[in-house]
Amino acid sequence: MKLLLKNAYLLKDPFSQIQKTNLLIQDGKISKIGEIQEDADQVYDLSGKLVMPGLVNCHTHAAMTLMRGIAEDMNLEDWLNKKIFPIEAKLTAEHVYYGTMIAQMEMARKGIVAYVDMYFHCDSVAQAAVDFGMKALITRGLVDIDGDGERRLKENILFFEKWNGKDGLIEVGFGPHAPYTCSLKYIDKVAYVAQQLNAPVTIHLYESRSETYQLEDILSTNLANCKVIFAHCVHLKDEYIPLLAKENFFVAHNPTSNLKLGNGIAPIKKLLDHGVQVCLGTDGAASNNTLDILHEMRLATLLQKMNDPSNITVEQALCMATIFGAKASGLTSGKLQVGEDADLIVLDVQRPWFLPFENMKAHLVHSASSLDVFATMVKGKWIYYDGNYPTVQIKEIIEGFENSVRDLTQNNV
Amino acid sequence: MKLLLKNAYLLKDPFSQIQKTNLLIQDGKISKIGEIQEDADQVYDLSGKLVMPGLVNCHTHAAMTLMRGIAEDMNLEDWLNKKIFPIEAKLTAEHVYYGTMIAQMEMARKGIVAYVDMYFHCDSVAQAAVDFGMKALITRGLVDIDGDGERRLKENILFFEKWNGKDGLIEVGFGPHAPYTCSLKYIDKVAYVAQQLNAPVTIHLYESRSETYQLEDILSTNLANCKVIFAHCVHLKDEYIPLLAKENFFVAHNPTSNLKLGNGIAPIKKLLDHGVQVCLGTDGAASNNTLDILHEMRLATLLQKMNDPSNITVEQALCMATIFGAKASGLTSGKLQVGEDADLIVLDVQRPWFLPFENMKAHLVHSASSLDVFATMVKGKWIYYDGNYPTVQIKEIIEGFENSVRDLTQNNV
Repeated sequence: MKLLLKNAYLLKDPFSQIQKTNLLIQDGKISKIGEIQEDADQVYDLSGKLVMPGLVNCHTHAAMTLMRGIAEDMNLEDWLNKKIFPIEAKLTAEHVYYGTMIAQMEMARKGIVAYVDMYFHCDSVAQAAVDFGMKALITRGLVDIDGDGERRLKENILFFEKWNGKDGLIEVGFGPHAPYTCSLKYIDKVAYVAQQLNAPVTIHLYESRSETYQLEDILSTNLANCKVIFAHCVHLKDEYIPLLAKENFFVAHNPTSNLKLGNGIAPIKKLLDHGVQVCLGTDGAASNNTLDILHEMRLATLLQKMNDPSNITVEQALCMATIFGAKASGLTSGKLQVGEDADLIVLDVQRPWFLPFENMKAHLVHSASSLDVFATMVKGKWIYYDGNYPTVQIKEIIEGFENSVRDLTQNNV
Repeated sequence: MKLLLKNAYLLKDPFSQIQKTNLLIQDGKISKIGEIQEDADQVYDLSGKLVMPGLVNCHTHAAMTLMRGIAEDMNLEDWLNKKIFPIEAKLTAEHVYYGTMIAQMEMARKGIVAYVDMYFHCDSVAQAAVDFGMKALITRGLVDIDGDGERRLKENILFFEKWNGKDGLIEVGFGPHAPYTCSLKYIDKVAYVAQQLNAPVTIHLYESRSETYQLEDILSTNLANCKVIFAHCVHLKDEYIPLLAKENFFVAHNPTSNLKLGNGIAPIKKLLDHGVQVCLGTDGAASNNTLDILHEMRLATLLQKMNDPSNITVEQALCMATIFGAKASGLTSGKLQVGEDADLIVLDVQRPWFLPFENMKAHLVHSASSLDVFATMVKGKWIYYDGNYPTVQIKEIIEGFENSVRDLTQNNV
């Protein structure tokens, strides 16, 4: 299967210049960029449109779309205990499937090609990703403070065996929830298993003010040897920052969720200055409320400029949303070059806020909105194209989602 | 001329419930809401769409779209002195017309029905607003530190006489730039003139850390008796807050611009708690870089939640973007009720991020993006409708804008 994308403005990566060119895509990969004489099975004229690497969402709980907007303007304890937990206790595999599907529709519509998930009923998450054709690094949320850590870890291992590598879309990792819900011993064991399976780990770290554990303790476990995505890192002491500057460590910054839940702003400028690889996440829709990496990129950038407008350059912002996220997730390259998976997005840039056109790279960070995304492609397949979601039956998904919400909220809200 | 909007979800104002209904619009005003039997000249079936009051942008320099993205990631001094001022020195009336037109296209596309402008070549701004059919409170930026304050004030007065009240769209006010560019005597004189003409005033106040003048001094002038929109108020001392809690005073909060220029966050929660009327602004496109009140509303809300998620309710957020902005500008009511001008927007709410549908009011603040706006109406006329701008010739505007940018940047960038 050969696809030709013609006459597009192309941004190969954050550091390259935008140029008008053509892309040939063969069997899911970019096979040629430039003058193309070959015939293709499908030809798309993308005049007036811009092609760039797809965005990566490095921290979410996709199925929480089911709880979007159920509890606004509440303090964190009430939000969790009165609203979120009672609903999560009722979640079935079917609910999670539909919640994840709606999340994927939103992410595809907003230019996201790959995401990192931590939740439960993981078979549903993986099935939804495969059905949709989206890339996902999926981890089972693991907690042992209730004494039931072993069961969950076993579930994560079985899930790994069943799904890891599926269709070139799914990667399975391990999700010890946080240092305040997992003992050090449990984190150590989970990380040991992950290391044996060469699987990545994702864990919440220093999300709220109340998290005062020592990072040295956490890193004295097998976690130090794993590929790890640390989500949040808002209340990270300055002296801990150099400890995260390692090739196998990533920080997933979730600026909207951190503000909305009252946690504050992560020290992203300092982390980047120390060489820490920072990627972006949306967190779940219950605490955001959108799954929109362009929004997170712009917000992350604005927040760091608060005291100095030279903080976070346009290129750094684009790196967080693409290359660093790609590397963290391990699912894509974040660059458009020959031989890479065709994980890309098409933006309609013939709009007033993309003028003057000469300053396009700045516009991608500071003017673009997720709804400028015209199409989203994963491994050479459109998962969103001009109002349509070619891989799924929208009606059935929305019906399934609405039925799930009805099930979940009947006796709670 | 009678327009019937059928089968829409309607949010009349921030405090009302969303209900499915019909609106009849006659001669630019809402004439009936509910069951409508009458014939109309034009009927629009808005099934699956939501109608709400149009948004108001209470602080901008519209023509600065010409400088969008020309200088990113620079400190404030270099940004102003090396980039903005040299270009502004070359601006002609024609440049300002096209810059303002592109700004209005963006604002209309993003649901803004009225804006407050401070700039120069004001005839061009007013002509652009009338040509486009958008409501605008236009003020001439006034400065006297260079000894040329009188000439500018005269220009503002002449502009008032020529344009105030034009077509029910234009209101003219006075724009003393800031306490650090205007002497107290000059502010007093400008305010006196404004008071005599019953015209509003807008002034920058405490935008940056370096602004340490006394608010008592500013309010000892005739300004105290005017209707005033104070833009920014970031570095406002706590003890000054009660001084702004007056029926004739408004604070225009510009969260994106304040972050992007390194100025910080205005104390909006405290201002609202003291009963100050806070509205929202985008500032100019050179320091934002979009003209997007839905974005400002969400950002303003998130920033105040940073330390307490119960700060700024959904209703408060909607009030800032609609009712308070409407009152500040004096151009519209911010409410959809019989007898009011039909200044409204239509959102397409059949999208994944508006699910669950039950939580729609929260979604309008925390999930909606400006590109969910399907149509924008001012005084009963569509100024944006489903991809089209019915009142203007887009091609000619874009050409005029691009020629202007070429003129301005040839020897500068």
